[in-house]
Amino acid sequence: MSKIAVLGYGVVGSGVVELFYKNKESILKKAGKDADIKYILDIRDFSDSPYSEKFTKDINDIVNDDEVTIVAECMGGATFAYDFVKACLLKGKNVSTSNKELVAKKGAELLAIAKEKNCNFFFEASVGGAIPIIRPLHKCLAANQITQIAGILNGTTNFILGKMINDSMDFSDALKMAQELGYAEKDPTADVEGHDACRKICILSSLITGKHIYPENVYTKGITEISLRDVKLAEKFGAAIKLIASVRKLDNGKIIPMVMPMLVQYESLISRVDDVFNAVMVCGDGIDRAMFYGRGAGKLPTASAVLGDVIEQLKTEGSGTDMAQTWVDCDNSEIVADYKENACRMYFRVTGGKDLMPAGSEIVENGDELVFVTEKMTFAESEKLEAAFTAAGAEVKAKLAVLDM
Amino acid sequence: MSKIAVLGYGVVGSGVVELFYKNKESILKKAGKDADIKYILDIRDFSDSPYSEKFTKDINDIVNDDEVTIVAECMGGATFAYDFVKACLLKGKNVSTSNKELVAKKGAELLAIAKEKNCNFFFEASVGGAIPIIRPLHKCLAANQITQIAGILNGTTNFILGKMINDSMDFSDALKMAQELGYAEKDPTADVEGHDACRKICILSSLITGKHIYPENVYTKGITEISLRDVKLAEKFGAAIKLIASVRKLDNGKIIPMVMPMLVQYESLISRVDDVFNAVMVCGDGIDRAMFYGRGAGKLPTASAVLGDVIEQLKTEGSGTDMAQTWVDCDNSEIVADYKENACRMYFRVTGGKDLMPAGSEIVENGDELVFVTEKMTFAESEKLEAAFTAAGAEVKAKLAVLDM
Repeated sequence: MSKIAVLGYGVVGSGVVELFYKNKESILKKAGKDADIKYILDIRDFSDSPYSEKFTKDINDIVNDDEVTIVAECMGGATFAYDFVKACLLKGKNVSTSNKELVAKKGAELLAIAKEKNCNFFFEASVGGAIPIIRPLHKCLAANQITQIAGILNGTTNFILGKMINDSMDFSDALKMAQELGYAEKDPTADVEGHDACRKICILSSLITGKHIYPENVYTKGITEISLRDVKLAEKFGAAIKLIASVRKLDNGKIIPMVMPMLVQYESLISRVDDVFNAVMVCGDGIDRAMFYGRGAGKLPTASAVLGDVIEQLKTEGSGTDMAQTWVDCDNSEIVADYKENACRMYFRVTGGKDLMPAGSEIVENGDELVFVTEKMTFAESEKLEAAFTAAGAEVKAKLAVLDM
Repeated sequence: MSKIAVLGYGVVGSGVVELFYKNKESILKKAGKDADIKYILDIRDFSDSPYSEKFTKDINDIVNDDEVTIVAECMGGATFAYDFVKACLLKGKNVSTSNKELVAKKGAELLAIAKEKNCNFFFEASVGGAIPIIRPLHKCLAANQITQIAGILNGTTNFILGKMINDSMDFSDALKMAQELGYAEKDPTADVEGHDACRKICILSSLITGKHIYPENVYTKGITEISLRDVKLAEKFGAAIKLIASVRKLDNGKIIPMVMPMLVQYESLISRVDDVFNAVMVCGDGIDRAMFYGRGAGKLPTASAVLGDVIEQLKTEGSGTDMAQTWVDCDNSEIVADYKENACRMYFRVTGGKDLMPAGSEIVENGDELVFVTEKMTFAESEKLEAAFTAAGAEVKAKLAVLDM
């Protein structure tokens, strides 16, 4: 019988325990073997819990117990979680995690240890919560060259933008509401500044390149500057403003990962993804495109993804490291191209300077302000255009890229 | 080095060969071993093909060649394909197929042989074309009890309905266009009568129950009776008419699989799935719901799914049968409940008999015809209501269920 340890009994960890025991019979049938949760690690007191005898405050109880072959890390952060996961992997224990910060910052190192110790470090829950995306990408779509990924990878900001779009709330009111509902944290920086989405696109970028892409090398812009006026103008243009995390492969093999609010036209299913839901569109040379949609966070949805990994580990333990779900460290300057090389149609809202509007642009509104969408141009060109407006005394009130997929 | 045989060099089979050689390097890297296509089976002459030396007209060349451990069946139909797949499995060869008719009719038998011979019979490509759905269902979502699946599983009918919705074409003109574009066959019965979607929902139903569900036990209705008038009235109600294949698990463990045109309200992403695309919404007790979207057919999309299976077989060959992707034969009367027990809101278009309209109904239009949507009722109740209208001298011009997910 395989023994499992759960690290952290917060929202996700308690969900893992709950869902495991709720569906234990069918889970073990699918795994094809017997298994149980032996330890739950948490520094808090859970003596009233029905699982009280499983709790420990000492990671060494788990690390040094050779019976434990599978560890589900649900603590979050990249300090204690990093130490604990590393210690477990060094003992050859399989680890699955929901911790995107850990994977985005330390993935290459932890994957290398897993390979050395002939075990697996899985992280399906780290991107898109419940949505199966990691395994489909490297298994089901393994025959494809993945050329582009773009999606909504942060539910909190999607909720906020949804309130702006559907209920005409401004950003700060929508953020307050998200905080009241528990969707946004007291310090909402990681969500609204795009850092959370950035970690997730780093993980997907690493997976499709086989090289660790670090968050600091990803152009990242959040939604704090999005005004209700631009939300309404986007609507007039036939688009919704969404926080899009994306990565594009260039012909030279380099990639451009980025996170930014973009106009997504209604023809794209991504524009229809509402509330706290996530969605990831994947383009490949075989599939054309496919989209994966679901709950990007939450207790049982995230637990479902962690347990999916655990079941896979139960089925495959002892048969070595899955090398398709891995990547190596690398000098990011050799693989990440400057985001300014990326090309999109661009939405501008300016005061004056109409003669500077490029030929071929589509005018959305021409009143006190001139609002238009250009033909495709590079971000470098868009910044030159912005500078030209400014030099001519016109103010660029907003500039947003348009997602074409 | 593993040797692969491709059965059938039609649209899908030639796509498998093309995509394999296009991405051979990355495919073998992901598989972690060397492999090549040794045989292509087709009765036609391909002596001008760059792969001419691989062609054979004799299945025994493949069956009796012990070097061949993996077979990709892309012939279609359940006669020759059945004999050939069975012969390969009996020799312990792993088979992957895009053939939904074969899986829906003979899955239990072929899976039993695979189990006996310690190999795998995979069929990711048989449902949703390029869309990863089979593997995500039984791997990534393995911790869930799947409670409901509903989706668009036939691209041809979705194209036809799309032309009716967006371009106000009537059914026969839209069908003609689909035939001209090669989306519909000369004899369109399997698509427009729902048989193709039925086979696919049988496969998904079998996967979530572990019991083979046969097509003849699935209530199936196609789109031939859908009128442009109902398409327009659905729009007024805020819904699109889509051909929905669905299965619902009841509390007593039985299931209700069915295929029928339904009103899908715009709030549901499924209503936004256009053109020949497919989408599958899955509900589970962990994930809440997730949706998978992509191309449901076509040369390279389907080939991508077949090769995803082949890569998995390359990675795992020799390690036994994956028991999570299997089911056994059963008496369907013990597991399939009468569709009449299913409950939905119901759309009615009637001439007269207004006093028979149930309380709580929403009136869509009240002119020469009375058009309304009821509160939730069973199909049995809806048939009683239909009979009551008829008895009162009113004609029921249309009756359609509303999808609630």
